[in-house]
Amino acid sequence: MKTEILKLLRERGDYISGQELCNKFGVSRTAVWKVINQLKEEGYGIEAVQNKGYRLKVNPDVLSASELKSRIQNKWAGKNIYYYEETGSTNTDAKRFGEEGAAHGTVVVADKQNAGKGRRGRAWQSPGGKDIYFTILLRPEFVPDKASGLTLVMALSVAQAIESCGLEAGIKWPNDVVLNGKKICGILTEMNVETDYIQYVVIGVGINVNLDVMPEEIKETATSILLESGKKMARAKLLQGVLERFEENYERYEKDLSLANMMEEYNGYLVNRNRQVRVLDPKGEYEGTARGINEYGELLVETGDGQTVAVYAGEVSVRGIYGYV
Amino acid sequence: MKTEILKLLRERGDYISGQELCNKFGVSRTAVWKVINQLKEEGYGIEAVQNKGYRLKVNPDVLSASELKSRIQNKWAGKNIYYYEETGSTNTDAKRFGEEGAAHGTVVVADKQNAGKGRRGRAWQSPGGKDIYFTILLRPEFVPDKASGLTLVMALSVAQAIESCGLEAGIKWPNDVVLNGKKICGILTEMNVETDYIQYVVIGVGINVNLDVMPEEIKETATSILLESGKKMARAKLLQGVLERFEENYERYEKDLSLANMMEEYNGYLVNRNRQVRVLDPKGEYEGTARGINEYGELLVETGDGQTVAVYAGEVSVRGIYGYV
Repeated sequence: MKTEILKLLRERGDYISGQELCNKFGVSRTAVWKVINQLKEEGYGIEAVQNKGYRLKVNPDVLSASELKSRIQNKWAGKNIYYYEETGSTNTDAKRFGEEGAAHGTVVVADKQNAGKGRRGRAWQSPGGKDIYFTILLRPEFVPDKASGLTLVMALSVAQAIESCGLEAGIKWPNDVVLNGKKICGILTEMNVETDYIQYVVIGVGINVNLDVMPEEIKETATSILLESGKKMARAKLLQGVLERFEENYERYEKDLSLANMMEEYNGYLVNRNRQVRVLDPKGEYEGTARGINEYGELLVETGDGQTVAVYAGEVSVRGIYGYV
Repeated sequence: MKTEILKLLRERGDYISGQELCNKFGVSRTAVWKVINQLKEEGYGIEAVQNKGYRLKVNPDVLSASELKSRIQNKWAGKNIYYYEETGSTNTDAKRFGEEGAAHGTVVVADKQNAGKGRRGRAWQSPGGKDIYFTILLRPEFVPDKASGLTLVMALSVAQAIESCGLEAGIKWPNDVVLNGKKICGILTEMNVETDYIQYVVIGVGINVNLDVMPEEIKETATSILLESGKKMARAKLLQGVLERFEENYERYEKDLSLANMMEEYNGYLVNRNRQVRVLDPKGEYEGTARGINEYGELLVETGDGQTVAVYAGEVSVRGIYGYV
């Protein structure tokens, strides 16, 4: 009922009488009053005015199961949500749920991670109360080769959700989301496969939202939404936006297993576009001008001799010649 | 000490005096006597003769941590062993150890599985006290594409180990091990990957060893070593053989990431060789004569029109036209 009352208050945006709430849920005034008090204790600014009722005045930056469930109304992305105040790694949790048979679209969210993971076993700083750490579990019916596109689908979804909050997000190929040329979001996709068969994919996303001080060792290349915009952002609302975009984009991807119909949108966010990049290919580094991705998510790089190379994310990385992007 | 005494008794094959054991381990006669009694209780036939000492007369079919550790002396394959009398699935356990950072070559063995897994989520019957269920955790440094060969490397290792016990094992492509044309071993390889990077691979192996009655629904195509040979086999010894072969074969595979130098051995076991097969390709079924694998582990099938098709295990399966193989 708490989730439902919260949802109602948010949607109404105006006063709802205690009587209306009683009727709606078939409970007593006291029961409603108790829930309102719980919500206040969790940080919600709820105004109570005689003869008018209750109104949600301030929706603060609360990350909780009720807050998330009252917001996320997707068909499958986040339909099941596990919320932890603290956990090791949401990717590890999601994989465990994957082993146990959890449904496509199950989402694990944590306020704090004690063993947050980046690519290739690197650590991802995950302090509590400030950022978003979540992982979505997917059970695609396509072959493992096609799964690499999902990372770009998620990057696009995050960039779109941040942009819809009024900020100019960009994507550094393949899957870093940036603000003003600095990284605010990392994505780690892992999958459990038999030879040609995906059992499940987990896509872990870390977004630096309200972090007010960046650790010294990464502050040249990383930042947070707060540091760039000067404003705190409600994390649950942002997460809601990301999952809504992702559900939509995933379905587009699944339809023809190609980024062809998302390419232009993605390239619109691509900060490397038309810039000089250095391709860090283990077989030999080279430079060129990045033009955008193709339908496979490969970065098209024009080299000096008039050739265009399609760079595959797995094997190489790309660095801007002038700075991070 | 129990493991060490057991190993010593087995290696000596003759009497060892209690005094020698006392000296070797720096313990009292009573301590040695206690260990001998424990071993007897676990089922070992140990003879004690005055003035001669102890002798291991019968090494029964015991599957236990001590038995396994006293046998397996590999560099890495089975250097760490977790033994469970009962577990859900050794693959699931091994993946959990993989998440927790367990070393390359860690092996999980169970006497009984309550949720044994076959390919694509199918169940694997895993009653207690009769068969072998084990999983080896690997951390290869090669790309995910090369991992599919490992399944064939394991199939070869199992066939070799069974053959060295005096039985005529065969392989049904790609990875079923058979006796007299019926399946006695299934292999399930799973891996956890980032786009182009293997975090870990687990290879689960189930071998029907001393099963005396096959379930009705599979008895046409499956059998056990006992049913075919009429003799019980010591499971720990067989597992020891498999892990020894596997360590050796894996190192050969790792060296040039190809089955080229194992192809002839593998094809020597291949029961489909020079037989008519039906290739169950979802894009269209066809028939032909199986000739053997190539260096990628693909099955070369000669079709009627003089063409040879290289069949990749992931996409299709192959069925004998006359019976299971």
